[in-house]
Amino acid sequence: MVRKTLSSRRFIKPSYAYLIEKKREGQEFTKEEIRYIIDSILDGEMPDFQMAAMAMAIYFQGMSAQETAILTEEMMLSGEVIDLSHIAKPKIDKYSTGGVGDKTSLVLVPLAVASGIVIPMMGGIDQDFAISSLDKLSAVPGFNADMDIDPFIEQLEKIGGAMVRQSPELAPADAKLYDLRKKTATIPSLPLITGSVLSKKLAEGAEGLVIDVKWGNGSFIRDLEQAKQLARSMTRVGRSMKRRCVALVTDMNQPLGDTVGTALELKEAIQLLKGEGPEDLQELVLKLGMEIVRLAGVAGSTLSAKQTVQRHIEDGTALAKLKEIIAAQGGDTSYIDDPDKFPTAQHIRKLPAPKRGYVHTINAAQIAKGVHLLGAGADEDGKIDYAVGVSEIKKVGTQVKQGEPLMMIHYNDEAKLEAALPYFKEAYRLAPKRPTPPPLIVERVA
Amino acid sequence: MVRKTLSSRRFIKPSYAYLIEKKREGQEFTKEEIRYIIDSILDGEMPDFQMAAMAMAIYFQGMSAQETAILTEEMMLSGEVIDLSHIAKPKIDKYSTGGVGDKTSLVLVPLAVASGIVIPMMGGIDQDFAISSLDKLSAVPGFNADMDIDPFIEQLEKIGGAMVRQSPELAPADAKLYDLRKKTATIPSLPLITGSVLSKKLAEGAEGLVIDVKWGNGSFIRDLEQAKQLARSMTRVGRSMKRRCVALVTDMNQPLGDTVGTALELKEAIQLLKGEGPEDLQELVLKLGMEIVRLAGVAGSTLSAKQTVQRHIEDGTALAKLKEIIAAQGGDTSYIDDPDKFPTAQHIRKLPAPKRGYVHTINAAQIAKGVHLLGAGADEDGKIDYAVGVSEIKKVGTQVKQGEPLMMIHYNDEAKLEAALPYFKEAYRLAPKRPTPPPLIVERVA
Repeated sequence: MVRKTLSSRRFIKPSYAYLIEKKREGQEFTKEEIRYIIDSILDGEMPDFQMAAMAMAIYFQGMSAQETAILTEEMMLSGEVIDLSHIAKPKIDKYSTGGVGDKTSLVLVPLAVASGIVIPMMGGIDQDFAISSLDKLSAVPGFNADMDIDPFIEQLEKIGGAMVRQSPELAPADAKLYDLRKKTATIPSLPLITGSVLSKKLAEGAEGLVIDVKWGNGSFIRDLEQAKQLARSMTRVGRSMKRRCVALVTDMNQPLGDTVGTALELKEAIQLLKGEGPEDLQELVLKLGMEIVRLAGVAGSTLSAKQTVQRHIEDGTALAKLKEIIAAQGGDTSYIDDPDKFPTAQHIRKLPAPKRGYVHTINAAQIAKGVHLLGAGADEDGKIDYAVGVSEIKKVGTQVKQGEPLMMIHYNDEAKLEAALPYFKEAYRLAPKRPTPPPLIVERVA
Repeated sequence: MVRKTLSSRRFIKPSYAYLIEKKREGQEFTKEEIRYIIDSILDGEMPDFQMAAMAMAIYFQGMSAQETAILTEEMMLSGEVIDLSHIAKPKIDKYSTGGVGDKTSLVLVPLAVASGIVIPMMGGIDQDFAISSLDKLSAVPGFNADMDIDPFIEQLEKIGGAMVRQSPELAPADAKLYDLRKKTATIPSLPLITGSVLSKKLAEGAEGLVIDVKWGNGSFIRDLEQAKQLARSMTRVGRSMKRRCVALVTDMNQPLGDTVGTALELKEAIQLLKGEGPEDLQELVLKLGMEIVRLAGVAGSTLSAKQTVQRHIEDGTALAKLKEIIAAQGGDTSYIDDPDKFPTAQHIRKLPAPKRGYVHTINAAQIAKGVHLLGAGADEDGKIDYAVGVSEIKKVGTQVKQGEPLMMIHYNDEAKLEAALPYFKEAYRLAPKRPTPPPLIVERVA
């Protein structure tokens, strides 16, 4: 798809300083102005310093629902928009704002495919605290996440699912803007987040989108009200662009599941595809899976949606689809059949509870930071230590005795453990009284 | 004076993104942080786009009085700070935020010198609507406003006054920041204005500063409350840097005096130095002059200050000092003796009142725009048409008959007149009832 040029000849290009001032004063941009801004970013006409001032003005003054929708559409149209209309099956995508221990995409993609849905998933934005699905999948020898758009579409036609790295051909205007936002403290702006995420997601060719908006200490959204606003902003923009959209606002105030790491999380995802694994993840997979099959029209009622999800896990078709996708992308599926093949750490030690009591809070971001320091994130050479991480995480509300493990730490390097330990210790707060665990699913926005 | 380096070895350089976020969140910078920011701007270490985001965050979140004082001092110390302590006389500077028809500096500088005060004036920031004193003085053949710091100091020693272009050696960090602010809609920020103006003014070596903060439609400050805040911010920072400071908040809701232009204004200034000229300017010169002589300690009481100012105008010493300064800077003083020597326009026509009534309001910025279009501002080659402008401006509250001149337009080019006329017409609002003219001096902040 070729970039549209300014349709109206009567549009007189304003100065960038004028446009910055307009937003600074809290005024609303016209469609032509937003298109001009995106064109200017794409062409490299608008200097970085004016983009930065503009982003900060947007941070403070916000954007109306209409402005956000136009921004999203114009950013989407700044690059390739994948057309999957020749595929007869329903095409649904899933997006999570990211959280610690979140491995649901690894389960939901094959589950959706098993349910007869095409799910064209490209990896999201890199985040400080969250390990991406693609980093986890890279623990499978041979797995290749880099794919051009044509073979990506072919794989969707053939198998129904793919998990690949974000194509630079999608929404290139966003890529430029996002890079600048990281360096100018303008990431946490609801309209800019909405535009950034949806411009890419909606370019992936799906007809519908299920969004998991996470809030809490393990998410970049610390405030529940903000998370709800983002869920509303995203579904509103999605609908205005004629996509079916539903968002769940979910808890990210402790790690999801029992593990944080790469291979450790992948193994937990395989468990989930076998109907096993921790309760919180089982519930989240079920709820998000139900939304996907309902949005796709595969299931009409809540009950039938639940049955569809459960059936494809129980009969093993979802797990089989994971193997099919991994195989199509060059991965060695014997690792999925026998997860013990994944590398394990030389040392496993417990994090002892400093006193008896109940796990009152867990700072998930601190856990993520510690796991990162153990070597779970890509180092300067892009190398990941697949064996390291934490497991058997005691969740909020669990009673522990003094000295009992709060979690098990998998490590290969004493120095890295020393660096990570303070974060793990700091992450836990114990209290004498049992706390009320936070609800996993806070709100549904449709 | 050599730039200080970071004094504390324990200061760990934060990332610029962290500093931007800190200000975005409305937190206060430490002295070390502000020093680091200014150092980074000066060294070119901080990229423009991060400076721009920072400036916009400051626009929205402001700065405390202490932060503003530190910012000003650090910007001042980013360059040369002129030392005039070897000159025994009191050293006072005067600054105006700029306005349409404001020619008071041309009168106040020689007046202060005649009163035994040293006044080291460097031209202020170029503004869209205000014609600078130096542009007006350039109507005098031979007059040279470009001077290095050493001859500037020598002239102050010899004559007591000088009117030169801002030296690029003073507050170079501000020059960089100001250039960026113009392009990013971050000019109207009180702490940034304060820092920008005072860092340069206080580097000029004066012990005291009289500030004329203008508010109204012919100033960049449209809001009276903002003008008062700026007056307070500037005097507070000046005092914290051990300078005596007083500010007058004055009206800029109609042109000052009867003329707008270059030679036309210079001629009006000469009139004022002869004790003639329009009432509003006479009052403003008197009030600002009294502040200067009192701040200098030349006069103790209000009465003696008034007598000092009036005496130096009546006895011709102020006018003689203007000639002395102009002569020292290479200008032909015969033009001051005989102002008819200045070039006059080929055509003078009236702007007729469209109906009878009272002058209700005058948009001074529109008048300035019109005069600019006539050719009073420097064109692309830096050429100024010294003859053009407007005179005999009917001020607010004046009664006019239909067809009576609201002002006289001096022009050399029909096409330029055509371009300017709509602005002149638009500037005037007539009403059947006599309005209450706004007070010229709104507040004194000391």
